[in-house]
Order: sequence, then structure tokens, then C-alpha cells
Amino acid sequence: MDYNRRIQKVKKMMEGKADYLIVGPSSNMLYLTGFVEEPMERPILLVLGDRDFMLAPRMYMEQLSDLPIELQTYNDGEDPYSYLNLRKGASLVVDDSLWSAFLIEIVNRFLPSNLLRGSVLMKKLRAIKDREEIEIMMEGLGIAEASFHDLINMIKEGETECEVGRKLEMIFAEHGVVPSFSTISTSGPNTSMPHLRCTDRRIRKGDIIIVDFGVKYRGYSTDTTRVLSLGSPSKEVMEIWSIVDEAVNLAEKVQFGLSGREIDNIPRKLIEEKGYGKYFIHRTGHGIGIDVHEDPYISSDNLEVVERGSTFTIEPGIYIPGRFGIRLEDMVIMNEKINRMNSLSRELYVI
Amino acid sequence: MDYNRRIQKVKKMMEGKADYLIVGPSSNMLYLTGFVEEPMERPILLVLGDRDFMLAPRMYMEQLSDLPIELQTYNDGEDPYSYLNLRKGASLVVDDSLWSAFLIEIVNRFLPSNLLRGSVLMKKLRAIKDREEIEIMMEGLGIAEASFHDLINMIKEGETECEVGRKLEMIFAEHGVVPSFSTISTSGPNTSMPHLRCTDRRIRKGDIIIVDFGVKYRGYSTDTTRVLSLGSPSKEVMEIWSIVDEAVNLAEKVQFGLSGREIDNIPRKLIEEKGYGKYFIHRTGHGIGIDVHEDPYISSDNLEVVERGSTFTIEPGIYIPGRFGIRLEDMVIMNEKINRMNSLSRELYVI
Repeated sequence: MDYNRRIQKVKKMMEGKADYLIVGPSSNMLYLTGFVEEPMERPILLVLGDRDFMLAPRMYMEQLSDLPIELQTYNDGEDPYSYLNLRKGASLVVDDSLWSAFLIEIVNRFLPSNLLRGSVLMKKLRAIKDREEIEIMMEGLGIAEASFHDLINMIKEGETECEVGRKLEMIFAEHGVVPSFSTISTSGPNTSMPHLRCTDRRIRKGDIIIVDFGVKYRGYSTDTTRVLSLGSPSKEVMEIWSIVDEAVNLAEKVQFGLSGREIDNIPRKLIEEKGYGKYFIHRTGHGIGIDVHEDPYISSDNLEVVERGSTFTIEPGIYIPGRFGIRLEDMVIMNEKINRMNSLSRELYVI
Repeated sequence: MDYNRRIQKVKKMMEGKADYLIVGPSSNMLYLTGFVEEPMERPILLVLGDRDFMLAPRMYMEQLSDLPIELQTYNDGEDPYSYLNLRKGASLVVDDSLWSAFLIEIVNRFLPSNLLRGSVLMKKLRAIKDREEIEIMMEGLGIAEASFHDLINMIKEGETECEVGRKLEMIFAEHGVVPSFSTISTSGPNTSMPHLRCTDRRIRKGDIIIVDFGVKYRGYSTDTTRVLSLGSPSKEVMEIWSIVDEAVNLAEKVQFGLSGREIDNIPRKLIEEKGYGKYFIHRTGHGIGIDVHEDPYISSDNLEVVERGSTFTIEPGIYIPGRFGIRLEDMVIMNEKINRMNSLSRELYVI
């Protein structure tokens, strides 16, 4: 990856908009420098402006010796902010996920005149993937799909939801990858809660199971959802599943040129026409790359055209509280039209 | 856990200091409400002030039905901040790890007169553990130590550092727990970089291996470091190891009443006397609980007395760049004196 090119690109975008860009340990830091660390209470800050440098605890000195920009270290117990030297009253662009603790120290000390969200600059830059990024994501997706395939035959009646999720995460580990987010594996009535991870509920005959899973591979994320049924699915499940599957199909036929809002509206309209509009309680999808959720968002508040080279999910769902929910999720890329990245069948897996 | 009592306690601490406390999806949210989610671009905010409530996307409604306080939901595409209704010019206490993206929206909209770091309030509250918390941590530590024991006999010459780390994480998964942080497993000269996670370097006869590992168990974290040697360790390794081990021993003899700075200084002084002062490049330890790193910090900038009931690490190290490093880390609790929480031997494991 050409980090210097990325840094110069973002500096160009800052011109006339902001004096400094401040990036914490995040996917943006990884994107711009190749280095990332878990966020923690010691500040690690990439600062672009009149002086471009990385501020980090001294203990990182050896580890950061081949950083693409200047390194400024501080000792434990020293005041790290004294090294920032930001001009008072400047305009700052701040990494979206930078901890507020650091921003508060910076604001209280350097009294900036203006604070902008880092995504304003970074989202366009990161949404459009180059060939190397797409190849990595396709490889990661292949591993995630192979892992899911292994899992299908290993799910047993009487197991808890969390046991199923852990099994999949162990298969990931055997493949040398980690989950890109805590696997969602819910069953029966729990499937109507789209972001519930798992519970100790035991899977019984007749249950459907939603598995929403992804891996982190060479810094990039995957995200896919499939539905299984332990024994034959009911007529109602089949009906709802068919509608959601059709909604995904429709969205995946989209040609280049539509906004996030317009793409979001395609499966939504279908689900509304079928009478389930009020049970589709989230957006249609989200961009994916280093982060599991990033630009472009396929939602009603994104009025911008989804650019060529963007990778994102299509994941409509119908959730009937207390009964069950169905969501199907593919990863796609916008070229002249939407192309599917997944090769895994979207069928209702009967086990 | 009695969440209402915790909420009332923190509100009491806010009196006269701040009008609002704003908490994001974090360990503080878990501590105050029992609910936590991974941080993401959709705001989930616990707001304490003239009205106490949780702001969350509508898709969480069912999942959050037994929250200890009022729930306010918003739809995807709606403006979540319109529900906050903060008084202009108020004084805000903001969760340390809240994403800057949310703080920037709040600052630009409600123009607070004063921003304070959430840790100001939360650190005292969370540093002192109750009996239930300590029991959970001891159970988690037992699982982490048993996992490390399983690992010892499974390390083979020619394996890469990352393979060793993944092995341990798979053993965690078999025990039904996840890592509390990316396992550090470095070998040979790489051990001189204290926060390097792992590389593809293959482990050879004569190498030392540092394993810094922890698990997340029922919401609480553990953190321990041990050193192994593949074949007999060199005289120099033995010498450095003995100094670090003695430094841990000295620190673990501390009686109640010392500040973080004073405790930090005990192993530091010993290592300085032995002539390795400049190679001890980090603080002596950090508090641990829900977060791997939390108050109290055992470092030169913590002038406060370490309170009874605090749990923290003791982890001095000596790192000789290009050669090797040794760190040993125990978890301890401050009672009338420091008591060790680990039962795992701190020996230099020769395999």
C-alpha cells in the first residue's frame, strides 16, 4: 500500500477546509500509515498540518521505526499534549472514532474555532477501493464462506445460540482469522432482534437460526448473513424468507448512478408492497472495508450517488416481534452495475 | 448488579460539577446499565441530567426492553440529536471513549460552556470493586491460567509467534471465553517491543517467548504475562529474568497507603540500582476490571493513594532493543496490603 500517496491525498483535501487533521488509533490510522493499535488511554495521534507526525508513547519507538512519517514519542508520566503545538483558534478535523477524552484535552488546551468530523474527509477517500483492497476482501470473504460451510453440518439440536456462534469463531481461528465483529447467532423468537448477539437459549426442532458473521483478514472486514432452519420451516417462515430474498435480488440488479437513499428504497418498496413495511426496521446496508460499517451507507439519509469501486452490503430484513425475523445479507461492489462479491448460496439452509 | 444504585451514585457525584453526563457504548455504559454494544456510527447514548434516558436506534427497542432507565429510540434516517434537548451553555461530562464524531455533533449543536472527561467521575466509582466483581474476576483469571497451562505443552519449534497466540485464543474459545485483548506472543529479539502483538517469525531453539494474555469473562477482564524459553535460557536471560521477578516480588509486598507513583517507584528503583533503569520504558501497572486498562494507574503521574478494593497489575519489564525483553505481570488487589490474584507460577517456563 502506498501510504505516502494517501497522506498527500488527504492533505490536499484539507486545503482551505481545515488546519489540522487529528487521527487516533483507528481504521483511518491504518489506512494512512499502515499502523494500528487498539484504542487505549495513552494517546497515539497522527497529526497532519504544518508538521506531519505521529505522537506515541516511547515504548512504541522500536515498533514504529518504519513509519511513513516522523515519529514523536513521550514518556509515561510526561504530558503528551505539550508536543502537539496546535495554533490556538485553528480549525480541526477529528477522526470520528477518536476518544472524546483526547478531544476534550485538545479543545480545552488549544481552543479551536471549528471542529469537523473526520469522516467528512476520509469517507470519500476510503469508500472507493483499489484493486489490492478488493482482492484482499475477496480472499477474506472466501475464508468466511468456507467457515460457514463447515459450520452448517456441526449445528446440533439442544445447543445454545452462543455455542453455535463460538463454534463458528473457532473455525475462523483454525483458518487463521478473527471475527470482524461478535458473531450474531440467534434462534426462534430471538431472531426478531436484529442486533442481539446470542443467548443461552437452546436450539429446538422447528427453529430458524440467523447467523450474521464476518472475518478480519489482512486488515479488511467481511459481513454476511444467512438463515438456517432446524427441520422443515413453517409456511410463514418460507413466505417471509421469499420476500426478503426477492428484496435482495431486486437491489442487486441496480445500475450505477443511484444514491444511497434510492438504493435503500428498492427493497423497502417491495417489502412495503407485501405488507411488511413496518417490520423492516433498519437501513438496507452499509459500506464495508477496513471497518465493518463505513461509507457509503445505503440508507434514506444518504443523498449522494454510490460511487464506482464502493463495496457495501445489501441486507434487508423483516422482524416480527415475539415471533421471528429474517435477514439476508450479501456483500456487493458498485461497478457499471452492482456485482455480488459472495459466492455462498443465499438459500434457506434446512439442517 | 444493582444498576439503579450505581446511576444514583454517579448522579450524586455530578451535583455542582456538571449538568449532564453523556456515556457511549462502553464499559461505563455496561457498568451503569448492564447493556453494552460495540461502538458504531449510530449513536447509542446514555444521558443523565434533568432527564435520565438511553437514546438508541429503534432496532434495539425489543432488546432494551428491561433497561433500568427510560428508552428513547430513533429511526434510521432520523436526526438522533434532536432528542437530546441539552440546555445551551451547559456543563458536560463526557465518557472518555465516546467517539469524537458524537461529541462534535453535540458541541456544535448545544454549545456547552465546559467539557469534562468522564473518567473524572467514573474512575473512583469503578476502581473500587465489590465482592461480586472480584468473584467474577477470580473465576475469569482461573480460566485464563488453565488455558495458559494447556498452551505450554503445545508450543513447538518452527511455529510462528502468531500461531502460538492463535493456539491460546482457540483454547480460550474451548473454555467459552474470548480474549480481553489481542494476545501478545513474541519471541527472540521481538520481545524487546512490549506492545508488538506477534509476527510470522518462527520460534527457534534458544528463544525466549513472552506471552501476555487475558480473557473476557462475564464482562470482566484479566491480564497476565509469563516468559517461556525454548531450550535452556542463556545466563543473560536468567539474570534479567531474576531482576524482573524480584521487582514484582518487591511491589507485591506493598502495604496500603501508597500512591500510584510511590508503588510505581518500587520496582523502578530496584531495576535502576541493577543498572537497567533506561530499559524499563513503561509504567509499573494499570487498574483492571471491565476494561483491561482503567484506574488506578501505577505510574509516576498518579499521585493519589491506591484505594482498598482496587484491582490492578504489577508488570515491570526490561527491554534491550535488538536483543530481548522480559516482562512479568501479575494481577493484584489492594487490601490492608497487596494480595496476589494469580495462582499461576511466575517461573521462567523452560519447554
